[in-house]
Amino acid sequence: MKALVLVAHGSRREASNDEVTELAKTLAAQDSDFDNVFPGFLELAEPSIPDSIRQAAASGATEIVVLPYFLSAGRHVVTDIPREIDSVRGELDGIVIRLAEYLGKAQAIPSVLMSIAECTKE
Amino acid sequence: MKALVLVAHGSRREASNDEVTELAKTLAAQDSDFDNVFPGFLELAEPSIPDSIRQAAASGATEIVVLPYFLSAGRHVVTDIPREIDSVRGELDGIVIRLAEYLGKAQAIPSVLMSIAECTKE
Repeated sequence: MKALVLVAHGSRREASNDEVTELAKTLAAQDSDFDNVFPGFLELAEPSIPDSIRQAAASGATEIVVLPYFLSAGRHVVTDIPREIDSVRGELDGIVIRLAEYLGKAQAIPSVLMSIAECTKE
Repeated sequence: MKALVLVAHGSRREASNDEVTELAKTLAAQDSDFDNVFPGFLELAEPSIPDSIRQAAASGATEIVVLPYFLSAGRHVVTDIPREIDSVRGELDGIVIRLAEYLGKAQAIPSVLMSIAECTKE
């Protein structure tokens, strides 16, 4: 079984965290390779990244993909998220945990931006 | 003539700002309704949002679309970016300035995320 962990920064604004949780539900409802999708937060919101990875493992996943919902490769993406993942690897023997590219790196981003721009009316 | 202003938060990390400037160039190179694309930054980097809108106007644009390169509708998207746009409207008589949806609101985001996730290999 495969699970996806969607990692966001986390916000003091609860509505922002709820947006991420809803997005994880939307992803879970899509037809995909993943049996489950869990939200996880680097800071300021729960569950933490280690806890969301543990939830994924507890759901029966033997492969877990962690996807940073971030636009740029700053310290959070380069250092903090890998460190959070590494902190939980030792306790999840036999489970493969992979770090995906962050959203901002997706090749589709320019065309998504252009379609938003072209659809903007008064 | 139409111009697009791509607005990012701005970072102390120059490489993050450069990513946004490169993205604006990528958008400018696409076949689209827009004759020019300018990057603009809310904080910590130049040009500011008002300056990037002025650049767009100086390039001959009579319609300017401002697109927030942000993932959630926090204070920056809801309050700060509209305020920056309003600060420059008075000096650009006859030019239409429209605020686009922020990136995180795009309907394509779930499928973009899923394709990143599904392409993640060891």
